[in-house]
Amino acid sequence: MPPFDIAILTTGDELLSGEISDSNTRTVAEILSTYGYRLRCSLSVPDQEKEIVAALQYLMSHVQFIIVTGGLGSTGDDRTARAAARALGQPLVVNDVALELIREWFAQRNFSMEPNNERQALLPQLAQPLKNPLGTAPGFRLQHRNGCELFFLPGVPAEMQAMFKQSVFPVLQQKMPNVSPRQQRTFKLFGLSEPKIDQLIPYQQLPAGVDVAFALDFPLVLLKLKATGKDAASSLDQAEALVLNKLGDYVIAKNGETPEGNVSKLLSNAGLTLSLAESCTGGLLSAMLTSQPGASAFLERAGVTYADSAKQDWLNVPALLLQQHGAVSENCARAMASGLRQNTRTDLSLAITGIAGPGGGTAEKPVGTVFISLASASGVHVKRYTFSGDRNQIQRMSATMALEWLRRFTLQQMEK
Amino acid sequence: MPPFDIAILTTGDELLSGEISDSNTRTVAEILSTYGYRLRCSLSVPDQEKEIVAALQYLMSHVQFIIVTGGLGSTGDDRTARAAARALGQPLVVNDVALELIREWFAQRNFSMEPNNERQALLPQLAQPLKNPLGTAPGFRLQHRNGCELFFLPGVPAEMQAMFKQSVFPVLQQKMPNVSPRQQRTFKLFGLSEPKIDQLIPYQQLPAGVDVAFALDFPLVLLKLKATGKDAASSLDQAEALVLNKLGDYVIAKNGETPEGNVSKLLSNAGLTLSLAESCTGGLLSAMLTSQPGASAFLERAGVTYADSAKQDWLNVPALLLQQHGAVSENCARAMASGLRQNTRTDLSLAITGIAGPGGGTAEKPVGTVFISLASASGVHVKRYTFSGDRNQIQRMSATMALEWLRRFTLQQMEK
Repeated sequence: MPPFDIAILTTGDELLSGEISDSNTRTVAEILSTYGYRLRCSLSVPDQEKEIVAALQYLMSHVQFIIVTGGLGSTGDDRTARAAARALGQPLVVNDVALELIREWFAQRNFSMEPNNERQALLPQLAQPLKNPLGTAPGFRLQHRNGCELFFLPGVPAEMQAMFKQSVFPVLQQKMPNVSPRQQRTFKLFGLSEPKIDQLIPYQQLPAGVDVAFALDFPLVLLKLKATGKDAASSLDQAEALVLNKLGDYVIAKNGETPEGNVSKLLSNAGLTLSLAESCTGGLLSAMLTSQPGASAFLERAGVTYADSAKQDWLNVPALLLQQHGAVSENCARAMASGLRQNTRTDLSLAITGIAGPGGGTAEKPVGTVFISLASASGVHVKRYTFSGDRNQIQRMSATMALEWLRRFTLQQMEK
Repeated sequence: MPPFDIAILTTGDELLSGEISDSNTRTVAEILSTYGYRLRCSLSVPDQEKEIVAALQYLMSHVQFIIVTGGLGSTGDDRTARAAARALGQPLVVNDVALELIREWFAQRNFSMEPNNERQALLPQLAQPLKNPLGTAPGFRLQHRNGCELFFLPGVPAEMQAMFKQSVFPVLQQKMPNVSPRQQRTFKLFGLSEPKIDQLIPYQQLPAGVDVAFALDFPLVLLKLKATGKDAASSLDQAEALVLNKLGDYVIAKNGETPEGNVSKLLSNAGLTLSLAESCTGGLLSAMLTSQPGASAFLERAGVTYADSAKQDWLNVPALLLQQHGAVSENCARAMASGLRQNTRTDLSLAITGIAGPGGGTAEKPVGTVFISLASASGVHVKRYTFSGDRNQIQRMSATMALEWLRRFTLQQMEK
């Protein structure tokens, strides 16, 4: 058990009724672990004053540093300030500093303040308000007489994150300055199952103190190497070399990278232009590539050519070919990629056509049948896959496989 | 406090280090609350035997029904079975039934069994194995001598979910048969802020026993009405009518619906065909519409026309117009939509062009400037927006606004 324990309490009926995922725990955990701190536990309770009080009392007797999120809004189901006042035995009063912060926020934006917003200034008597740069609800800080520090932040993820960085993390660093950051290397693998990867890891040769862990982020397997202490970096360097020697071919991204981010960078660096023709993925591949800045440097255009008329008109796929082979066929994929490249004169044209389901499958071409084709100056390649899963899994698997084609092709080009 | 308390314990370093979000808690919570059960708390601890043992002991003394997920894999960081054995004071032994389940799984798929997979049959002595229809790791059930029921499931979301439905939920229904399901109505609003919505709710007129709650699912505000007991349905009907009377215009989806799902249904029902030209949203709108089955019934094609050449070639946007007004302009949006409609002859053609950032903004057209245009038999409409947020928020806001245009247009058409 570390000497200084940190916990997060997230409040909200929606967290326990399954309506939304708890992204705040993840955000806080991520920042903490980057700097070598560790969450001892995360706890979620409903928006009930009684339950929040009980959770606070339990946590205050177990840890020294508590982050609480949610329930500071302006509406009737926001009960955290009241619960905090009860748990710490303080009356709830209008906090003048908090009221001023709220007024400022509205004044700066020329927004009109609603009467409900004033309610957000009702805080436990000894609370220190914390400025919210992105929203109307101020947070607040409290100290229990046993020394436990409590920080109350809004549940809206962007506001929570900004306030955590600005008002909470600096206090933590002051209270617990000498942490030894845990270092970690993450490898995102595509194309091998977890047990297969596990078998290939040279466990016997890994330096002492290096931990191995797995996680899934469909369709990727995440392999993590972790170490702490002053030799962490050199141990991890050694472990990384051993792992990459066995598994490097399957590593599609590392650490904070994404497959789509890496492909974007590779294409930009190689100076290659790209055009896409998507059918069963419906624009997913294009949306992935354009979710990051700089896509305009390499992506000339992308067509979601659902109807046969679109394939004929935008990709020059002959009507006869569609009639003879169907839109989900090796011939059609090939014609889509090469027709697109003739039209666009991009270095690369990639086409995907398939059956994402749930309907549309046949005995010969079941749901999950997907053809990928890549046209370049060195010719047109096409391959048939049979993916399993639901519609969204088949779409994600297809888009990731297409990224993998682009990654391998560009790496080969750059080696030449 | 309900008489029968249920908790979920999720295990995994990755949950507390921020590497992934805890989707299993959400899944379990969602199923439970649909049937009127309620999670009393959710707890997450790292992959450490000691921490899992402590969490189990804490939960066993507080609740009667515990679902544990994670740590049943075949790799070295899977320690849940060992922790369960310690927490319940039972030795860890090879369970023959579990071993048989694992062998069957491999045999049925003609996969070869890795030695690591045998480790998954090491269970606490009195464990009853639970079949895993989707993976190699069997789950198991244990009873504490105080009557507490514990169910251990794998952490892989699809496996966890299948096993929860098959092996856990039926036991819960048997143990606690007479629950009164909590009923809920969710309204997903677009275009009004939470305090504005709150002000419009006729709280004084709502029937007693109806609770109101809010949540954010950017860019939507979720408004929920909840009630329990035998009058729940009629109270909620009454409350729904009152709320829709004030806010109906802003409700873009209800309950399990999504804005994109509703627009798909509306277009299909109205028999209208659609084509899209996306620039700054990069295919996001198309990917949203095609993430559900049946998109081919109305979506003829979608073009992600990033480069000027693509706008000229696929959308007939004149080169001179691009030169004079730029690609992010009212004129260009109008030309994209009308050019696309001339080419495709679809009933509707919608175009989006803008600056999603972080780069590319100017004083005159800052990041967040987005033009949306819709062409139909009744003419071409275009509007300029200035959205705020990061790249992904601007893309999501733009795509949702475009869906809202399609929803309103189609509803008006159907009224005619």
